[in-house]
Amino acid sequence: MPHRRRVFFVSDRTGLTVEALGSSLISQFGDIDFVAVTMPFIDSAEKARAAVAQINAAHRESGKRPLVFSSLVNDTVRAEIDKAEGLVLDVFGKFIVPLEQELGQRSTHAVGRSHSAGNAKDYNHRIEAINYTLTHDDGVTHRGLEDADLVLVGVSSGKTPTSLYLAMQFGVKAANYPLIPEDLEANRLPPSLIPLKHKVWGLTIHPERLHQIRMERRPDSKYAAEENCRYEVAAAEKLMRQAGIPFLDSTTKSIEEIATTMLHEARLVRRVY
Amino acid sequence: MPHRRRVFFVSDRTGLTVEALGSSLISQFGDIDFVAVTMPFIDSAEKARAAVAQINAAHRESGKRPLVFSSLVNDTVRAEIDKAEGLVLDVFGKFIVPLEQELGQRSTHAVGRSHSAGNAKDYNHRIEAINYTLTHDDGVTHRGLEDADLVLVGVSSGKTPTSLYLAMQFGVKAANYPLIPEDLEANRLPPSLIPLKHKVWGLTIHPERLHQIRMERRPDSKYAAEENCRYEVAAAEKLMRQAGIPFLDSTTKSIEEIATTMLHEARLVRRVY
Repeated sequence: MPHRRRVFFVSDRTGLTVEALGSSLISQFGDIDFVAVTMPFIDSAEKARAAVAQINAAHRESGKRPLVFSSLVNDTVRAEIDKAEGLVLDVFGKFIVPLEQELGQRSTHAVGRSHSAGNAKDYNHRIEAINYTLTHDDGVTHRGLEDADLVLVGVSSGKTPTSLYLAMQFGVKAANYPLIPEDLEANRLPPSLIPLKHKVWGLTIHPERLHQIRMERRPDSKYAAEENCRYEVAAAEKLMRQAGIPFLDSTTKSIEEIATTMLHEARLVRRVY
Repeated sequence: MPHRRRVFFVSDRTGLTVEALGSSLISQFGDIDFVAVTMPFIDSAEKARAAVAQINAAHRESGKRPLVFSSLVNDTVRAEIDKAEGLVLDVFGKFIVPLEQELGQRSTHAVGRSHSAGNAKDYNHRIEAINYTLTHDDGVTHRGLEDADLVLVGVSSGKTPTSLYLAMQFGVKAANYPLIPEDLEANRLPPSLIPLKHKVWGLTIHPERLHQIRMERRPDSKYAAEENCRYEVAAAEKLMRQAGIPFLDSTTKSIEEIATTMLHEARLVRRVY
């Protein structure tokens, strides 16, 4: 029976950062079956005590000390969570002291400085990128394609989530342009993409995976047939290679990895929201 | 002149986590003007040495030690980054040792365990949520509204990014249903939403901000007029209050905060991708 361990991500805000950090750390212990709960908005001593009660209950039930990853700005709240019967690892506490020493300043200890609504300019830029991406999804419109920061092509099904992620996370205007059978037969980029070649990126996929996805959409169609998927993927890769378009494989890479790789290699500005 | 400080986020993967963590920590020092650069995919000693050269150059240029937030699984790569002329704070190193002790295991030290493509089931769930949200954006279709995990209503412009974020980050099927003048006049929820009331959430906005946004879309229209915006926001809030629909203000909260609050209060499963 695998070793099971309860995990809590405790935050005074959204918990997104400490959840990502803690998940990444526990993924380093492959043999253990972790059961994780995120507790966001723990911003008062009272809420902290309720969280501690839940952590302690998990300890009693499982007989093992839970892992507690926390990010708590307020000293009183942190002191409460520290009392939990678990291994408490607080990100804020661990890093804020060396930062205060280095910068020669006390930190404001103000809750809610990350993922804040920020200034209207940043917000507008992000929303504009999302709207751009939504109206340039799957070749819906070719107008304004020259305004794109990136244009995604391919036969894969990962283009829509990747372009939305690029817009949402990084404020990148990402258009999404499917390669159609005519393009594959002609073995060249659609003419409207040629002047934009420097910002075109490809996505590919294992033919078996494409077959599975298409079988769900249109069972037993020619479109979904394994042979057709194999042909389309091979033809698209050939086209991209010949046109000098870099491409990534969405079968083995997550949306986050693909988006970050494109952003990085295309040397686009990386915004943090 | 404000104190300026260079910051580097160094990661062997996407850098998303260490960037979020570092940004949150430095936001606690409001007086300092931080200039941050993210360096993803630093996964070899050679790349680490190139990163160190860049950090050291920033030190020489600015005359101040840069802050270096890193998340590096590989000991050799970490040892290289440690040589940088900066305050190096490594998340992995700081937390992995106490975890190994607690769990009685060595960690695998395997790069790339977070944001991985994961299993096909998780991936499909996420893509399904994104597709659902795209096809239920802005009242495009009412069919299948009962399958939504959350239905967002309001006159605000934040519904689309919030519902997309819910789908992308948490795998939540979020539909998005605008309140139109007829709803506001009748002062009641659209009939199709009444049976779904338990999963309906509202978004509101400051009238001045709505006015600004609409002026960009349709300058000098009645739709964008300040008075009309004031009326619509007041009427929508009245309707939601009367119908018992909880609502949040997108003027003061980020997309992340709104999405996380809804997820949490609606007690939906919080997935980590």
